[in-house]
Amino acid sequence: MTEPNISRSSYDTAYARSQALEQKIATDPSGLRMLTGDRPTGALHIGHYFGSLRNRVRLQDAGVETWVLVADYQVITDRDVIGDIRGSVQELLTDYLAVGIDPARATIFTHSAVPALNQLLLPFLSLVTQPELERNPTVKAELQAAGKSAMGGLLLTYPVHQAADILFCHGNVVPVGKDQLPHIEQTRVIARRFNERYAAGETVFREPDALLSEAPTILGLDGGAKMSKSLGNTVMLRMTADETAKRIKKAKTDSDRVITFDPEARPEVANLLTIAALSSGCTPQEIAEEIGDKGAGTLKVMTAEALNEHLAPIRERRAELEKDPAQLFAILREGNERANDVANQTLAKVREVMGMVY
Amino acid sequence: MTEPNISRSSYDTAYARSQALEQKIATDPSGLRMLTGDRPTGALHIGHYFGSLRNRVRLQDAGVETWVLVADYQVITDRDVIGDIRGSVQELLTDYLAVGIDPARATIFTHSAVPALNQLLLPFLSLVTQPELERNPTVKAELQAAGKSAMGGLLLTYPVHQAADILFCHGNVVPVGKDQLPHIEQTRVIARRFNERYAAGETVFREPDALLSEAPTILGLDGGAKMSKSLGNTVMLRMTADETAKRIKKAKTDSDRVITFDPEARPEVANLLTIAALSSGCTPQEIAEEIGDKGAGTLKVMTAEALNEHLAPIRERRAELEKDPAQLFAILREGNERANDVANQTLAKVREVMGMVY
Repeated sequence: MTEPNISRSSYDTAYARSQALEQKIATDPSGLRMLTGDRPTGALHIGHYFGSLRNRVRLQDAGVETWVLVADYQVITDRDVIGDIRGSVQELLTDYLAVGIDPARATIFTHSAVPALNQLLLPFLSLVTQPELERNPTVKAELQAAGKSAMGGLLLTYPVHQAADILFCHGNVVPVGKDQLPHIEQTRVIARRFNERYAAGETVFREPDALLSEAPTILGLDGGAKMSKSLGNTVMLRMTADETAKRIKKAKTDSDRVITFDPEARPEVANLLTIAALSSGCTPQEIAEEIGDKGAGTLKVMTAEALNEHLAPIRERRAELEKDPAQLFAILREGNERANDVANQTLAKVREVMGMVY
Repeated sequence: MTEPNISRSSYDTAYARSQALEQKIATDPSGLRMLTGDRPTGALHIGHYFGSLRNRVRLQDAGVETWVLVADYQVITDRDVIGDIRGSVQELLTDYLAVGIDPARATIFTHSAVPALNQLLLPFLSLVTQPELERNPTVKAELQAAGKSAMGGLLLTYPVHQAADILFCHGNVVPVGKDQLPHIEQTRVIARRFNERYAAGETVFREPDALLSEAPTILGLDGGAKMSKSLGNTVMLRMTADETAKRIKKAKTDSDRVITFDPEARPEVANLLTIAALSSGCTPQEIAEEIGDKGAGTLKVMTAEALNEHLAPIRERRAELEKDPAQLFAILREGNERANDVANQTLAKVREVMGMVY
């Protein structure tokens, strides 16, 4: 993901709100509702896990009401071919439950199954201008990443659809990386304008806060900027311990036998140290010190061991879950039902304040 | 409405298809479904009546299945204030039924009440590019007419929403003026691309045909290009015969006492002759000849008489209908239910071909 430009001051404001939110989560999470999710493009890797899944489970376990969106319509924002959506959804559900998303406390849903959510796109589109849509730096970056010249209509409007995803369930906690801040700002603007223009100032929608992630980005094992299944530079949650060890053994490192944590000068070594640290609870520096001059081979063995140990219970649950896909889809259908109930209520309120009740 | 540029050849093609459609309507209207409608911005005037309402009733009575959309979300495409939507919808319903739209044969519905219809906007948006949206000449003209500088998101995407309006119920007859042709073309493109990209060539959506209106445009009574309630240059269907006569008495004409039908040189006189002709079934030339050198005063009296006589039964029904608004909204709710049934079926099919069934 290209880093979009966000002004320093708007970042600082969002960061301060994020800090205040963490404080509230720690002291009194009542009234907090998290909206988070993923595009269903297949099984997840440890970049997803350490970058966001683990944090979601932390928030869920801290008592934040949890809504997890399987954003199936986002799959077609920047590609012409859908692929096996159902298979991808199944993989995602398996990973979610394996890492600890608990369907008894969390609502997992696909937005294509919630018409009233999608209808919100219409009043919300009336609240933004084309120049605002065009300015969204994340959308520009995604267009570039997709390697397309012409912006598609769904990609152009997707920050507004994302606002619908967040606002339909009155989500007020949205865990994101810095690159997603422009979307959250767009959602805040839409909530504010809706209340002003259509609800005479009544707070139909609250402005959600971004909860800024402090998790480090995991690089690809080839030293690339990002883990990506298609590049083969990932460790997938669903891999076996052996496959994991093999992948890490092939990871790019450097020839300096003294292992040090220096993300600038030695990004590949630092990446493995980060993975080992996140898996074990030590700091990367501690691990580097322990290895000393035993070289990259030892680093790889230690990283694979720590990671496999950390993932073992997740993988065990995953194997269990894989045996019963019907159960996974039953959980999704239940989540979709809950999401429809809430979306229907929200849409009823929207129609009421807009005077569209007949 | 500013006349957008449509290429001669694409107009000719659309015209030929429209002619073939009229032929089919005359011989065998089975399988034809008309989608037509209006923005609910208040009661209708004789420009609406002679320009489109009368034609819809003709098609309904000829056996074309009739769907009439009260396009409430279109009210917010180009204005910030909604106004009394419910009141406007009530006026529209009254006019519809008064002119002869028959709820036993026609489905009258508001698109805000049909979530599955609105959801179609999402897959459809994935099928068009931003440059295509920007090129739509009617959207540009409407932006200009609204006197706004920045294009709103809902106005920009409204041809795609209109495609959803037409395609959700598999409408294949869309009576429009020439200025609406770009919208119908956009709908045809979306239907075609959906079938190709998401349905492996299966015909989920048929390409609808424009049925080009041959009705003349009624000018404002002040000689302006268009009747518009806000300009006070209209005759409303709901006016009394006296009010109608007064309005027409004040209409702009010229000082030549010999009445002739010459739309180029004498547009105001020609407009009154047109109204009298449409009301009486004579030609404008016949009426002009009958008046001869008796001047504009006689023309106005004859026009008012012919119009009032034509509108008398409509106004009688209108007065009856006004007594029972609850009944009108019951008819609308019934239409909305039918529209929801059909939209849910269409969305189910769309989800199925896109592989989004969980």
